[in-house]
Amino acid sequence: MSLRRVSVIGSGNWGSTIAKIVGCNIQKCPGFEMEVRMWVFEEMINDKKLTEIINEKHENTKYLPGVRLPCNVVATPDLLHATQDADVLIFVLPHQFLQRVCHQMKPALKQGVYGVSLMKGLALSENGCIRLLTDLIREQLSIPCAVMMGANLASEVSQEYYCEATIAAATLDMGRELKQLFQTDYFRIVVIQDEVGTELCGALKNIVAVGAGITEGLGYGDNTKAAVIRLGFMEMKSFIYEFFGDRNPQESTFLESCGVADLITTCYGGRNKRMGYALATTNEPLDELEREQLGGQSAQGPLTAYEVYNMLKSRDLLSKYPLFTAVHRICTREMPASEFLSCLANHPEHR
Amino acid sequence: MSLRRVSVIGSGNWGSTIAKIVGCNIQKCPGFEMEVRMWVFEEMINDKKLTEIINEKHENTKYLPGVRLPCNVVATPDLLHATQDADVLIFVLPHQFLQRVCHQMKPALKQGVYGVSLMKGLALSENGCIRLLTDLIREQLSIPCAVMMGANLASEVSQEYYCEATIAAATLDMGRELKQLFQTDYFRIVVIQDEVGTELCGALKNIVAVGAGITEGLGYGDNTKAAVIRLGFMEMKSFIYEFFGDRNPQESTFLESCGVADLITTCYGGRNKRMGYALATTNEPLDELEREQLGGQSAQGPLTAYEVYNMLKSRDLLSKYPLFTAVHRICTREMPASEFLSCLANHPEHR
Repeated sequence: MSLRRVSVIGSGNWGSTIAKIVGCNIQKCPGFEMEVRMWVFEEMINDKKLTEIINEKHENTKYLPGVRLPCNVVATPDLLHATQDADVLIFVLPHQFLQRVCHQMKPALKQGVYGVSLMKGLALSENGCIRLLTDLIREQLSIPCAVMMGANLASEVSQEYYCEATIAAATLDMGRELKQLFQTDYFRIVVIQDEVGTELCGALKNIVAVGAGITEGLGYGDNTKAAVIRLGFMEMKSFIYEFFGDRNPQESTFLESCGVADLITTCYGGRNKRMGYALATTNEPLDELEREQLGGQSAQGPLTAYEVYNMLKSRDLLSKYPLFTAVHRICTREMPASEFLSCLANHPEHR
Repeated sequence: MSLRRVSVIGSGNWGSTIAKIVGCNIQKCPGFEMEVRMWVFEEMINDKKLTEIINEKHENTKYLPGVRLPCNVVATPDLLHATQDADVLIFVLPHQFLQRVCHQMKPALKQGVYGVSLMKGLALSENGCIRLLTDLIREQLSIPCAVMMGANLASEVSQEYYCEATIAAATLDMGRELKQLFQTDYFRIVVIQDEVGTELCGALKNIVAVGAGITEGLGYGDNTKAAVIRLGFMEMKSFIYEFFGDRNPQESTFLESCGVADLITTCYGGRNKRMGYALATTNEPLDELEREQLGGQSAQGPLTAYEVYNMLKSRDLLSKYPLFTAVHRICTREMPASEFLSCLANHPEHR
């Protein structure tokens, strides 16, 4: 039997961290090709190409400085070179590039290849409806696509701090192979089958985190924050059943790492919470806050809140989702942050 | 129809906070006797009785200083006076006094009275099995007993910060009446029927909080803590089904305020987390740490861990509950805190 080849598409801090894990694991797994190609969007760092730096120093000095990559992880700027021989494609790139990347790799994919997405976010379809990133991969490339989500800040995983992740895969074989690739002593994997619930938890939790940050910014304590986290959790659940119920999301998914654990981590740290805090403690518009505090990068939560808001509005469902709705309105500054909690006073959960 | 009377048994910070809420609500509810008696374990504060201070100043200066109580809350040191005419008994006292208090009030209870317990903890039966505090009330007094649990730090609720609680009551009538007594604009109630799941979540979460504190004390970050919280959550669930499955605990209870929200709050603040942190950063025995850091009060988590450990051990189930087991062993100093995470590496959840 020929050896199976794994490629990583993307090389940010999470992509590099995952390349490190997969590279190490493959050295112990006889069924795999030793080399793990990592597609890098080429850029120049002090007159030197990033791919060359990675391949010479075995370190992504720009996005994951200080962490040594195993020698079998090979950076390449050539997308086709990275993807054409692969049996497993790990998608871990900023999702605004996904469509273009899929388009470029499509002509030269190997028979039987499948993907696994580590991307957190949503796409929009032409009619303004929310679309899963994995559906975009599935449809554009005509391949199956699993997901891996969880409470996994790259900075902590790359330091080998104990944590968990959830892999959702439609078939047991895929789940088993992915667990073999990703699990380590410190990075513990639970495999489930609910791909849709897993992916949506990863995206929707960012809205809740903005809400948690608003609560903090308003000066409330841990109880209030816990109430906001829980109500957000219930809206996530309700939203998933409402719009993706036909794809069989599972109640138990919400208690996996991709659900409750990722939600907690995101509500206590990270840029979405930070933006919520800033929205409650300043009067500046969101893009100004992102410029100042995130060096111009976007937080995912406000964007997801906007997409979700439009979908809810078009179906006349805003009143069922007061937390999602309030977060969106506070992000756009239509509503003062100080009104956040009064929007939750008559939450459908309390009827 | 005669007016219904509500009494509060206990007057610590949570008892006083609840007396405030119930007292205010009753002033707006025509079906209730205006006076709310609050049983106070009498003590002298600078040569003056605590009950007199409360009744003159309308403030529990010892346990809830700075918070004004409504004038219809009347402190009494006489347990029978507090309980004999009551239709609803709110149990909110340190649970080591429960048995004695029940014994004293039993001879003079009104027909049709029921209880609601706000106490978090477990009792032990004679054979070393865990027993619900409400079962003790139900059996000793032969009355029904509901529970109210949730992410409710007294200090925050008494400041009227927005938060939630779960009331579990066997009948709809009871649930409806209790919601009327407890709910305010800022204190939002969800009524469910799963009394057993609700009460056990409130007790077991304290073990997990010790674990969260240990993780923090060991210097790990948010991901690791989220993994510990989640694994603890799964052990809580598994334990409840294992030992109380015949009493029909509900999956959905875990997503109520008494479940996930209370767990989060307790793992990010409070004395159990603090003890966990201290266990990981010192070599002192637990009772020494409690003396130093909690002024000699006990944290609930280590005690509950001990009770749970014995029950698991007697049934040969320790390996199914590595987190509960490790927390107990670290509390007794049988095991160094530094081994905590290696105990979780092969958690049954990851098989």
